[in-house]
Amino acid sequence: MPCMTHADNPPDIAAAPLPTLTLAKGHSKRLRAGHPWVFSNEIEMTPETRLLPPGGLVSLIDAGGERLGIATFNPHSLISVRLLSRDPAQTIDRAFLAARLSAALALRQTLYPRPFYRLIHSEADGLPGLVVDRFGDVLAVQTNTAGMERLLPDLLAVFDALLSPRAVVLLVNDSPARIHEGLQPEHRVVAGSIDGPVELEENGCRFVADLQDGQKTGWFYDQRDNRAAVARVSAGRRVLDVYTYAGGFAVQAAIAGASEVIAVDRSETSLALAARAAELNKVAVQTVRAESFAEMERLAAAGEKFGVVVVDPPAFVKSRKDLGAGAKGYRKMTRLAAALVEPGGFLFCASCSHHMPVEAFALETARGLQQAGRSGRIIRSAGASSDHPVHPWLPESAYLKALMYQLD
Amino acid sequence: MPCMTHADNPPDIAAAPLPTLTLAKGHSKRLRAGHPWVFSNEIEMTPETRLLPPGGLVSLIDAGGERLGIATFNPHSLISVRLLSRDPAQTIDRAFLAARLSAALALRQTLYPRPFYRLIHSEADGLPGLVVDRFGDVLAVQTNTAGMERLLPDLLAVFDALLSPRAVVLLVNDSPARIHEGLQPEHRVVAGSIDGPVELEENGCRFVADLQDGQKTGWFYDQRDNRAAVARVSAGRRVLDVYTYAGGFAVQAAIAGASEVIAVDRSETSLALAARAAELNKVAVQTVRAESFAEMERLAAAGEKFGVVVVDPPAFVKSRKDLGAGAKGYRKMTRLAAALVEPGGFLFCASCSHHMPVEAFALETARGLQQAGRSGRIIRSAGASSDHPVHPWLPESAYLKALMYQLD
Repeated sequence: MPCMTHADNPPDIAAAPLPTLTLAKGHSKRLRAGHPWVFSNEIEMTPETRLLPPGGLVSLIDAGGERLGIATFNPHSLISVRLLSRDPAQTIDRAFLAARLSAALALRQTLYPRPFYRLIHSEADGLPGLVVDRFGDVLAVQTNTAGMERLLPDLLAVFDALLSPRAVVLLVNDSPARIHEGLQPEHRVVAGSIDGPVELEENGCRFVADLQDGQKTGWFYDQRDNRAAVARVSAGRRVLDVYTYAGGFAVQAAIAGASEVIAVDRSETSLALAARAAELNKVAVQTVRAESFAEMERLAAAGEKFGVVVVDPPAFVKSRKDLGAGAKGYRKMTRLAAALVEPGGFLFCASCSHHMPVEAFALETARGLQQAGRSGRIIRSAGASSDHPVHPWLPESAYLKALMYQLD
Repeated sequence: MPCMTHADNPPDIAAAPLPTLTLAKGHSKRLRAGHPWVFSNEIEMTPETRLLPPGGLVSLIDAGGERLGIATFNPHSLISVRLLSRDPAQTIDRAFLAARLSAALALRQTLYPRPFYRLIHSEADGLPGLVVDRFGDVLAVQTNTAGMERLLPDLLAVFDALLSPRAVVLLVNDSPARIHEGLQPEHRVVAGSIDGPVELEENGCRFVADLQDGQKTGWFYDQRDNRAAVARVSAGRRVLDVYTYAGGFAVQAAIAGASEVIAVDRSETSLALAARAAELNKVAVQTVRAESFAEMERLAAAGEKFGVVVVDPPAFVKSRKDLGAGAKGYRKMTRLAAALVEPGGFLFCASCSHHMPVEAFALETARGLQQAGRSGRIIRSAGASSDHPVHPWLPESAYLKALMYQLD
């Protein structure tokens, strides 16, 4: 293990004894049960703790002085403590990070034959705030907490030691999570080099992701199983993929034998990726640049019908206060899409809004169907693929909701 | 279509105009939105309606006299109205039943290459209270409402016309649903003939189901996708399948390359089915007759570890009042099973209890892990396979909850 030589002598972390952070009395129960977070109101906030560096490591103790483990602490964040280890003696060094990465890697290698997947999915992989997508020998990294931001140099060293990536792309976006953590949106940094979009494989199909486009995070592996499920019903059917982005659903449906595939997106850049994927897989996909709702209305007015319609939009609900408007958005989206589905055809709807509960999404899509005068049945209700695991005590982090209907 | 000759001249249904059933004022909204049921307190209960035959057809109208559709009505059931059609002019004859069966069949033929699946899944397939499992040319039928019981002769004629089954087995059990409907448990009836267990295929593997064993309903197709998911992580691992029944998980894990498979059940009859399936697929599965909890405790005491543990028990929660005891049961089950999982190994837990919400099941399994001193991540959260569709307005009918954990 080449990393071990580095790990024996970590450069900057764990050099000094960690500051101690004390939980307010009666607030250790949830953590002891298995939850990995402590909220800011659950901490004994002293002048000293207020001055601790955002994202620094702390030794966590309860009000009685019992040691609970090692965590990152951000005095400016509502989720101020994120547990890294329940072992109070654990040193958070490169060996520790390498062990977490190795475990995450072993899981993905069990699940997938080829090196294209979400490699690290935050808390569920024991690295809160860190997201890493793997594109063969290129890694796309997001840090969403001050804690992971501080550990980044060591993480990069560990990636290098374990995976020898050709390039590491830092996707430093302006996600709400980052803003809550007090992190500034920055320009992205590239370790190593890439020239243009990177190639990836999903369900045996080839795609390209543009990791240097500031708007997106490259590729959404979370829909892997849902794309396979849509492909399974696409043979011989006319398929419409709304919000196609890089062509994930469209191209897999075409490969599965769809009679015709139309892919819609508002972005020319996205459609170019979709077209390139179609070309790589030697299938025909017709790309249409348009606003999604307007295009669905236009197709309905033209009397167009499809055997499969896919609507996989960006999050309509960005924060809790958007819930009402977002819910209406999903309802309308479903109404417009359902009108385009031929009798016996399939409608796949997804929501990646963290704040939209699955029951509410199901209800709004059912209402949308009703408004379109359609009935049917849910034949699939699924979340993200297995490379996006969920921490057992953070079920609300399962942000992706997907429903596949068959309509009468 | 051979059925049409029958359908043109239905023998006993729709011969006379249907009695009218009136909804109480203000109670048509849910039905209009898409829900298929009316509860007994939402009906204008007159002396005449009380005398209507349980399960008979009615024409449903709202308090203002507007016709809402055709339904079955059971004056003795809490769910007293189950909608069959929103078309008030719809005749419920063999042609109607054949159209519903044909649509259900077309969906399954799209989803599965071979004729082994749940063919009719009640409300979601437009035939409330009817469940039909298909085993090639043998059908296993359950009627859970008085309405479907009355339509049974016509349904059998339609099955015959559309599928020419070699045999139709009536699984007339003492399910709570039947008891609520005032239906007596009866002995099963066989149309046609079968001699011994029937063969079936699932995920390309061969199994046998005993449709004449009064304890079970033959085969649980609902776990089809979950069995495939467990098989995918089983290669090279030692697998324990607790509550194996007919060997579904065990045999598919063995075929996928498990290093060793142990299948536990309390029933010798079930283990014989599992052993026969192993034989048919030319794989080794060791069967152990034992009580599940006791056997898991014994294995733990003996220090046994497995790469994959599957616990798929019968419903622990049979009614709402059992929820507390059932929740404890799932917690204990998970604790005992987790203790047997090697580091990095997988734990698959399922609940088929209608009354156990998915969040509660997830919570109890998380608690069970914690009690076993284990941590991990959920890599799959799934319901039943697509041949068990869900009516959009009956999300609570999605009874199967399955969680696959990977443990640290």
